[in-house]
Amino acid sequence: TVVHLFKEIFKAGLELQEDDHRKALLVSRKKKPEDTIVEINGEKIGDGNTHFIMGPCAVESYEQVSTVAEAVKGEGLKLLRGGAFKPRTSPYDFQGLGIEGLKMLKQAGEENGLAVVSEIVNPADLEEALDYLDVIQIGARNMQNFELLKAAGSVNKPVLLKRGMSATISEFINAAEYIISRGNKNIILCERGIRTYEKATRNTLDISSVPILKQETHLPVMVDVTHSTGRRDLLLPAAKAAMAIGADGVMAEVHPDPAVALSDSAQQMDIPTFQSFMRELTK
Amino acid sequence: TVVHLFKEIFKAGLELQEDDHRKALLVSRKKKPEDTIVEINGEKIGDGNTHFIMGPCAVESYEQVSTVAEAVKGEGLKLLRGGAFKPRTSPYDFQGLGIEGLKMLKQAGEENGLAVVSEIVNPADLEEALDYLDVIQIGARNMQNFELLKAAGSVNKPVLLKRGMSATISEFINAAEYIISRGNKNIILCERGIRTYEKATRNTLDISSVPILKQETHLPVMVDVTHSTGRRDLLLPAAKAAMAIGADGVMAEVHPDPAVALSDSAQQMDIPTFQSFMRELTK
Amino acid sequence: TVVHLFKEIFKAGLELQEDDHRKALLVSRKKKPEDTIVEINGEKIGDGNTHFIMGPCAVESYEQVSTVAEAVKGEGLKLLRGGAFKPRTSPYDFQGLGIEGLKMLKQAGEENGLAVVSEIVNPADLEEALDYLDVIQIGARNMQNFELLKAAGSVNKPVLLKRGMSATISEFINAAEYIISRGNKNIILCERGIRTYEKATRNTLDISSVPILKQETHLPVMVDVTHSTGRRDLLLPAAKAAMAIGADGVMAEVHPDPAVALSDSAQQMDIPTFQSFMRELTK
Amino acid sequence: TVVHLFKEIFKAGLELQEDDHRKALLVSRKKKPEDTIVEINGEKIGDGNTHFIMGPCAVESYEQVSTVAEAVKGEGLKLLRGGAFKPRTSPYDFQGLGIEGLKMLKQAGEENGLAVVSEIVNPADLEEALDYLDVIQIGARNMQNFELLKAAGSVNKPVLLKRGMSATISEFINAAEYIISRGNKNIILCERGIRTYEKATRNTLDISSVPILKQETHLPVMVDVTHSTGRRDLLLPAAKAAMAIGADGVMAEVHPDPAVALSDSAQQMDIPTFQSFMRELTK
Repeated sequence: TVVHLFKEIFKAGLELQEDDHRKALLVSRKKKPEDTIVEINGEKIGDGNTHFIMGPCAVESYEQVSTVAEAVKGEGLKLLRGGAFKPRTSPYDFQGLGIEGLKMLKQAGEENGLAVVSEIVNPADLEEALDYLDVIQIGARNMQNFELLKAAGSVNKPVLLKRGMSATISEFINAAEYIISRGNKNIILCERGIRTYEKATRNTLDISSVPILKQETHLPVMVDVTHSTGRRDLLLPAAKAAMAIGADGVMAEVHPDPAVALSDSAQQMDIPTFQSFMRELTK
Repeated sequence: TVVHLFKEIFKAGLELQEDDHRKALLVSRKKKPEDTIVEINGEKIGDGNTHFIMGPCAVESYEQVSTVAEAVKGEGLKLLRGGAFKPRTSPYDFQGLGIEGLKMLKQAGEENGLAVVSEIVNPADLEEALDYLDVIQIGARNMQNFELLKAAGSVNKPVLLKRGMSATISEFINAAEYIISRGNKNIILCERGIRTYEKATRNTLDISSVPILKQETHLPVMVDVTHSTGRRDLLLPAAKAAMAIGADGVMAEVHPDPAVALSDSAQQMDIPTFQSFMRELTK
Repeated sequence: TVVHLFKEIFKAGLELQEDDHRKALLVSRKKKPEDTIVEINGEKIGDGNTHFIMGPCAVESYEQVSTVAEAVKGEGLKLLRGGAFKPRTSPYDFQGLGIEGLKMLKQAGEENGLAVVSEIVNPADLEEALDYLDVIQIGARNMQNFELLKAAGSVNKPVLLKRGMSATISEFINAAEYIISRGNKNIILCERGIRTYEKATRNTLDISSVPILKQETHLPVMVDVTHSTGRRDLLLPAAKAAMAIGADGVMAEVHPDPAVALSDSAQQMDIPTFQSFMRELTK
Repeated sequence: TVVHLFKEIFKAGLELQEDDHRKALLVSRKKKPEDTIVEINGEKIGDGNTHFIMGPCAVESYEQVSTVAEAVKGEGLKLLRGGAFKPRTSPYDFQGLGIEGLKMLKQAGEENGLAVVSEIVNPADLEEALDYLDVIQIGARNMQNFELLKAAGSVNKPVLLKRGMSATISEFINAAEYIISRGNKNIILCERGIRTYEKATRNTLDISSVPILKQETHLPVMVDVTHSTGRRDLLLPAAKAAMAIGADGVMAEVHPDPAVALSDSAQQMDIPTFQSFMRELTK
């Protein structure tokens, strides 16, 4: 077992190196102890207050997104979301309006004083999308689309990075490192539920990931309550839990008429529900 | 496809029956809309306030459990936990002090005005254990030990039923039904984390299960923050999330000297940590 | 980092101890390099050939189990299974015929020269059950019912131990250690699928566990193709994979008329299907 | 409950439509009952025989890949794999040699009469890569990178599509549909293990997915034994199981000196191991 001890000392050396490597991660708190604050349209995400990103799952028309934008403005919020490039399980499902959708989103945002957030799925679209977007979202399915991460790391816009459906916290942190390592420091992490055996919810909200991510990195952390639960009746309790555990923000979907939505109809809030959701959270 | 329609009508009939079956579950809110309140030592669990069950993972000695009991009393709490029959992965790990442990727990509880909660693992021990216990705990590994559930359903003591490590919410509810169907209505459900691929935490706290269980059943729901996270640094944020999402109580482990604990040393709080934990939660 | 190295040397010491502990496990191959062969009714499970345990999910009547027993005998097999104590998710589902069921099973077995295997769920039933059983089965839900494991370790009958629904391989091995540590060396391990996010099958057959268990322990390893897949159409391919990867046996369910079975109707084979299943596997 | 019945009849109508939709999937066996055979370099994948794709995890140098290519040729095989664009968890890990790597792979392939398979991760690289590749691999992390799937669907080269780490079988089939819906019919599906709680293997080989995919689609199905197990000692038993259950091919990694490999060093076979692996499988 002296041989064994030598092996262990060698392994210890390796682990020391690995530890140094982790220390060296640019997103880690070891590297930068103070909180990163991402400022968008006057909202300082990471400043200790709760920020909200609300809007429809998909941009379907100017009228639709404009109606939601007015409601979002009406609640005193500053950030509007809406999908234009939609990653869908089936090729025959609605794939989003693309650049036209981004234009509608931007117009609705500008008319209501809102910054806009939308997902980009192809590195080749990033350049053009920059004209329309205030925040680039990278979705769960693309969390390890490293070419997209590198592209998002090379531009000068905040990135909202969602955790992959079955990504470990460590993989999530490394995905953010791909972005920061290319120079872009304005990254917001977003927990959106993980895939487990439990099917009562669409995914399982891994609420503990919030304090872990806050400890391990200096980045702001939001919670997407819509995708993590997939149930309209759980949006409010999940948002309360997210705020209590220290999330820097909450993301949820709002649609003027969820029953006819082209995607995610079971989980979006209509406008009165959204208004009472905000009332409950800010009282 | 007329054949198909007939099949579907038949299936609809089946589902109607199944729906009736669910409606008929004695634990369901459909059967009893008002909240069940389980009263133990003056604490009314399910009354809308947060209740706390604190104590060591395992009873190791009278001195140990007595020290914790004083601290629990010092915080104004009324419920003390401590394991005497310990289900351990390896047969060579500390298996608990058995009935002797229950006696120590009861003595420490009585001296400090605390009701005591402890796990029973064998139906054959239940009868004798009733002399020492105020609440019978059924642990995660035994959530589908149906003989134990039936035995616990036949006695006149409250039961704290923990969710199995990979139990669905539906299986959890059915396990509670085993107890109530034998006559015992005083059941407290306890979410304690589920097994997933993520290893940053010991288990993944399924925080959404709390509002679902509150909706589907009329029983009080607690959260065991110790086993769901397995990390001392996450106990406080997890407890805050549990309270925010509507849990009726929080369970956590406290030990006079966690470093030398015979089990779970990495996740128990020492007494000063426990005191600051309570201060943070009740401020 | 010299401090760190010291810590690592200390940790290495701990791991050495742990390694010794694992070496010391009575079920481990390090402790006993040669294969354990469990002999039942002339079948030598673990001898390098494939053995089969077939029979209905639940014993429903003497006629039912007798019909299956004749078919099992007709295929030249020696081992009959049938559940008498059924662990069911709902208390309102058929719970099995209990000791009466064991009597029917034994009679059908004796009349056809078959040894019988059935699950015991309560340590208190074990003593009486010994009169009727050749092999005690401990089911997935009770893999960590340590009181039951201890009881089964104290009797002189082979034990078929199923892997828990979300048990790690290491936990499974430790569960077997509970049995052997009490003196009973005749243990057969049985992989029966694990719980994952995938719902196309009832569970996910963890086929790799077979060679791992064969490497780590000296015990025979079977595969229950019925519960791991939950689909009649997958029984044959799963059995072929189990045999190819080195399993010592295959377990599957056979019922004279699956459509009216009181449990598991979707996954049992009828008798002609069973006959063609055997023909395919032994050709 | 008449209302309920009407609802169910309506739902039945919806399900009928959905069923039609599934029937309409171009990859489904309902649409095309006969097996698709993908012919590459004289190998007819899907013809009922087992085909092998072997080679290093990553192309590291011409010498390295050439050494492996000779060994692959020596076994009478026709298909060589090697990664040039490596999706790696950390941005600081070896990212592959890119187009230079593809050139080395192609040269080694040509010199040994082997067709070559390599992963593409960015739609923008596809055009150039076509000059060097015989089969485009889409990796697990990109299974729902729909832009890449669409791009691969628009070219005239066979595609090897790996199952995502936590993709359901249904999502996997829909990913293939993205490719075929753009016109490319030469698709090979590849099971490579799924992410579960079990950590004894790198992933859990979902062996049952093979017969399910063969039933549901007309496409050939391979098994990547390297990534599904992540353990050199399990490659051979896993390959035997894959062949027994009906896989059309086996994929595994071979490296001249695994200990110094720039990636996946713990799971690649060296050349003598590879030769004995082939001998065992073909005897």
